[in-house]
Amino acid sequence: MTPGRNPYPASVDIREVGPRDGFQNEPEIIATADKVALIDRLARTGVKRIEVTSFVRPDVIPQLADAREVLAAVDVPAGVARGVLIPNERGLDRALAQRDRFDEIGVFLSASETHNRRNVNRSVGDSLAGLDRVIARARDAGLRVEAIIATSFGCPYEGLVERGRVLDIARHLANAGAAEIAFGDTTGMANPVQVAAHLADAAAALGEHVQLTAHFHNTRGQGLANVLAALQAGCASYESSFGELGGCPVPAGATGNIASEDLVGMLHEMGIETGIDLDALLGAARAAREILGRPLGSHTLVAGPVRWEPGG
Amino acid sequence: MTPGRNPYPASVDIREVGPRDGFQNEPEIIATADKVALIDRLARTGVKRIEVTSFVRPDVIPQLADAREVLAAVDVPAGVARGVLIPNERGLDRALAQRDRFDEIGVFLSASETHNRRNVNRSVGDSLAGLDRVIARARDAGLRVEAIIATSFGCPYEGLVERGRVLDIARHLANAGAAEIAFGDTTGMANPVQVAAHLADAAAALGEHVQLTAHFHNTRGQGLANVLAALQAGCASYESSFGELGGCPVPAGATGNIASEDLVGMLHEMGIETGIDLDALLGAARAAREILGRPLGSHTLVAGPVRWEPGG
Repeated sequence: MTPGRNPYPASVDIREVGPRDGFQNEPEIIATADKVALIDRLARTGVKRIEVTSFVRPDVIPQLADAREVLAAVDVPAGVARGVLIPNERGLDRALAQRDRFDEIGVFLSASETHNRRNVNRSVGDSLAGLDRVIARARDAGLRVEAIIATSFGCPYEGLVERGRVLDIARHLANAGAAEIAFGDTTGMANPVQVAAHLADAAAALGEHVQLTAHFHNTRGQGLANVLAALQAGCASYESSFGELGGCPVPAGATGNIASEDLVGMLHEMGIETGIDLDALLGAARAAREILGRPLGSHTLVAGPVRWEPGG
Repeated sequence: MTPGRNPYPASVDIREVGPRDGFQNEPEIIATADKVALIDRLARTGVKRIEVTSFVRPDVIPQLADAREVLAAVDVPAGVARGVLIPNERGLDRALAQRDRFDEIGVFLSASETHNRRNVNRSVGDSLAGLDRVIARARDAGLRVEAIIATSFGCPYEGLVERGRVLDIARHLANAGAAEIAFGDTTGMANPVQVAAHLADAAAALGEHVQLTAHFHNTRGQGLANVLAALQAGCASYESSFGELGGCPVPAGATGNIASEDLVGMLHEMGIETGIDLDALLGAARAAREILGRPLGSHTLVAGPVRWEPGG
């Protein structure tokens, strides 16, 4: 780091993924009214983007079977983008029936063949062909598209995923019309040296054309260290989950997503703006904890935020 | 960060504090034989320094009332330094009765007046005067002395602790004869920007004369992010606790020390050597989990280490 030079962005964007990624991974199905209340509360914390739900198959993921009802009911202030995760064209069809109820979509695949096959039962090539169609149709409908590349920093089945392969996939998705590429560390295998190199290379290859986003997991405790490395590489867009909900907890009991409260706390302490009111966010996480009736993994939810006022 | 330049030390030293810091904070007193077995196991992981116990008042801290028995019984290979935490001259007297059973001592105070008074019931000035005597006598006995400055990055009662004050205390302790100064983030209030500035200033003020060590807590999830910032500032000495035991869990339920397994995992993934066998360390943490009979906070203990071999 060059002494005296602040290597950090002045502000970063955070997309809250808890209502989809988190609620999907709860063993007990959360009541629709509770989901809507939590989303409406999150939407008043200052966060600008929320992944609200997903049109996945209700027989496979009953936790999100109420996607239509949730989309219809949420009451989100102007300026907060409602996102929907779309697994395929059938999911897009269902979402487009409520076109006025959301603002952007996310699509996804895995960078490693094995993880992609186990997750969506297709080769990466077949997934890309399908995503081409979904992205084109979503753009025709005026929707912004984020493409999420899972296992970007390593695959639990294949090990290291070559960076060149990940960037080739990213380039394909950008050419197909994605406005944003998110690199997912799906099972928490990234380390800061790898992250710094990955995001620097991604920015050089794609940064002029698309927004680059990092999605880290805290599986091995390195979530915020990887955020720090990404910030130093110039990445100013992150995804996280309130309460530390969700995020592919593999093996059972492992930590998934980084907690939005921990991310926002660190950024604010570092002098980086997020536009998010941390106390309001902690209130939303507390409400989720009450509804779920169990302790959540968020550190700041337990310890409270750092306050620098004397006696605070 | 200057592109193309590796900003990290090639190797770092890790001091394992679990047998003192961790065992002291367990509500149930651990059997002496179990402590000895865990210490002997830790001593065979490749770690070079272990905080074995402390000669504190047994009526105040019954968890460490067996300090004499533990010191007498541990069987540590040559090259592994056995450390003892010394609270005051009376503690030093007790330790010196077993002078051949340990290699170094730690002494401590808090940088903030309020925390120091609540912890040891003295002013910082009185603590420093007492430490002068302890350090001088320990050096006369041929012991290396590490001085630990708690609340170096913030005090839960007073808020921000001025860096100049912390460095003045560090300078005093170095002049008194401490060979090493450890900056403790006692309740997890540090952030990476602060850590980078603190350690750069500390190195400029003291780095030629003493070893500088960072002791972070994961209270708000930033433990390894702070390690990353410290590494970039050139700090090559850290303290951590196997299993994530101990470390002033305030408020109740909060995380304390960073887990040695998580620290070693991150460093190895980054290509930084520690001399520690992560699998052996995980074995020691698993043994502690069995003895304590509860889940521990270490992420890597739950998720397992990252393995890059295909199919691993």
